[in-house]
Amino acid sequence: MTFERPLALASGAMLSGYELVYETYGELNSERSNAVLICHALNASHHVAGVYAGAPEQRGWWDNMVGPGKPVDTDRFFVIGVNNLGSCFGSTGPMTRDPLTGRRYGPDFPVLTVEDWVHSQARLADALGIERFAAVMGGSLGGMQALAWSTLYAARVAHCVVIASTPQLSAQNIAFNEVARRAILTDPDFHNGRFYDYGVTPKRGLMVARMIGHITYQAGDAMAQKFGRELINQRDQYDYTFDIEFQIERYLRYQSDKFSQYFDANTYLLITRVLDYFDPAASFGGDLSAAMTAAAADFLVISFTSDWRFTSARSREIVQALLANRRRVTYGEIDAPHGHDAFLLDDARYHALVRAYFERVAVQIAPGIPPGSAQGDRA
Amino acid sequence: MTFERPLALASGAMLSGYELVYETYGELNSERSNAVLICHALNASHHVAGVYAGAPEQRGWWDNMVGPGKPVDTDRFFVIGVNNLGSCFGSTGPMTRDPLTGRRYGPDFPVLTVEDWVHSQARLADALGIERFAAVMGGSLGGMQALAWSTLYAARVAHCVVIASTPQLSAQNIAFNEVARRAILTDPDFHNGRFYDYGVTPKRGLMVARMIGHITYQAGDAMAQKFGRELINQRDQYDYTFDIEFQIERYLRYQSDKFSQYFDANTYLLITRVLDYFDPAASFGGDLSAAMTAAAADFLVISFTSDWRFTSARSREIVQALLANRRRVTYGEIDAPHGHDAFLLDDARYHALVRAYFERVAVQIAPGIPPGSAQGDRA
Repeated sequence: MTFERPLALASGAMLSGYELVYETYGELNSERSNAVLICHALNASHHVAGVYAGAPEQRGWWDNMVGPGKPVDTDRFFVIGVNNLGSCFGSTGPMTRDPLTGRRYGPDFPVLTVEDWVHSQARLADALGIERFAAVMGGSLGGMQALAWSTLYAARVAHCVVIASTPQLSAQNIAFNEVARRAILTDPDFHNGRFYDYGVTPKRGLMVARMIGHITYQAGDAMAQKFGRELINQRDQYDYTFDIEFQIERYLRYQSDKFSQYFDANTYLLITRVLDYFDPAASFGGDLSAAMTAAAADFLVISFTSDWRFTSARSREIVQALLANRRRVTYGEIDAPHGHDAFLLDDARYHALVRAYFERVAVQIAPGIPPGSAQGDRA
Repeated sequence: MTFERPLALASGAMLSGYELVYETYGELNSERSNAVLICHALNASHHVAGVYAGAPEQRGWWDNMVGPGKPVDTDRFFVIGVNNLGSCFGSTGPMTRDPLTGRRYGPDFPVLTVEDWVHSQARLADALGIERFAAVMGGSLGGMQALAWSTLYAARVAHCVVIASTPQLSAQNIAFNEVARRAILTDPDFHNGRFYDYGVTPKRGLMVARMIGHITYQAGDAMAQKFGRELINQRDQYDYTFDIEFQIERYLRYQSDKFSQYFDANTYLLITRVLDYFDPAASFGGDLSAAMTAAAADFLVISFTSDWRFTSARSREIVQALLANRRRVTYGEIDAPHGHDAFLLDDARYHALVRAYFERVAVQIAPGIPPGSAQGDRA
């Protein structure tokens, strides 16, 4: 979808038109009341569910959650996945050629915020004729977008689903992002973000960045259980080398190498900054309750006890701020072992909770009940 | 101290003689029973306490713990600090010229283990005429050395003090070490470890490595309290840049820049591998109790509740293994907020515990009580 109208950004910069790549699943009902927007996190895309013809291995990143008969049931809901501005999977971003210069934006692409994304997504909703979403939903950075939707476009969000997220990054979160950025920025192949012109990519920096990501997405205990101190050789003794010896090293090398082949370095910088900046309470003197006063949706908030990146305590801050505003909140703290990554994984309790919640949403939007009367139809 | 005799290493390599730089504090008593060996961690050195003439700012790394009237009281104990083999503060290591070739060892310096270090230190004890230490003591990697001393030279250790340590690295610990190593190894200025010959240092890689270190040495809560989300500018708004904006970023940049100016990259690789390899239980089918059977010392084990690098649970594993062998163990779990770094900081409860323990040690070695009768003089 092409948007010709310039987009004013939080930074003060103006984006002169842009494109958003999106996918939809299911059918929009005649009342246009069954749309669900799925917001993605750092390295995901619009490809939320299903597979493409001829590419059965490229399954959508939340395919276990979204699809026919799944917790977010595309037999009942019209689900939209959209690639965020600044990302590298088709929407306008640093890899795009600036129409004014014909050159790739690279480091000149403006720094964005979660709120910028939400405004850009609202235009997509306008174009698709969706006045009000049955739900806006996301995990991690996607949860931040859902949260921002609930206050920036309160009348357009019936339900807001915020999973494994946080109302703001901690100093430690920012610190890990900063290390990743430094690894990329100081890679000689980065060329100040102009590496496209040199026919190279800052692969070394991207690999280090991705390794840090992988470590912080996983719980220490789960990592210990999966990899332990297992060696890659079969001799059960050390090789006395700085090359790969432990299974965990091989895993990190493999994952980060794969990542460095498809992910854009400028996008990585950009999206980690989007994460750093998110802080809806900041404009309200740090008072998250005050920040959430504008919200009108019902909320489902879910956290995972083993998530040390965005801890359950941070999700509880969101819940408290919503309760202080007398919002309806369902909160689930899932005792899953997989750390932050748990939001992407198949956990029976987690999926049952989301399924039950969306059952309720589906009942509300069932034909015969006019959209917007959500408050009235429950005991 | 120069050692002419070759040292056989765990890897099978042979080190043809070596030098160890050491410092001593206090006086060795006539019974030679009051010696305390302090083992250092990753980036520390033999300079444990006090200052050098004319350099009052270069205070020893454990100066709050060791000195006249301090918890390890140098008015009563003869304390030895020794720079480990492979380190970069004067002892033989990658920066040293190989006597056979005249060239710096660089990447040819053999990979070491904690046990190699202990054997090299035992020769120093021999040369100093110390048959038996009143205590061998260390924090973190230093605690691993103390632990290894207690089994490799059981008869030579009266008391073993193991602080903020672990019986083995976890997969997550190894993973963080691996990221640091990759950052150094893939820095083009590393030149396969031969950077000395090119007049450069892999500064970028060292900085990334040190940043990761700093994050994992500190507790998330303490970092939040110290830095929060404070910006470096006074305008209280974002600059929309990938350069330094948050105080935590400035701190990491400053610390890692300083580190990169004095620390040797080959040493960093080496010492992180020493950490990875330590696993005394491995030769006993993973049974730490069996591994500790050889130990004869009394133990003081201390951990810090906010240390997520080497958690209290890991220290308790050590305590359990010692109790299973009916060793005398004093265990303190200090509820200090500073994470792994707490072992270097001034905490009243922590220092009081160490002080009380060493009071007891001092009584045992007081003139009139022959060394070795430690078991008898307590209720």
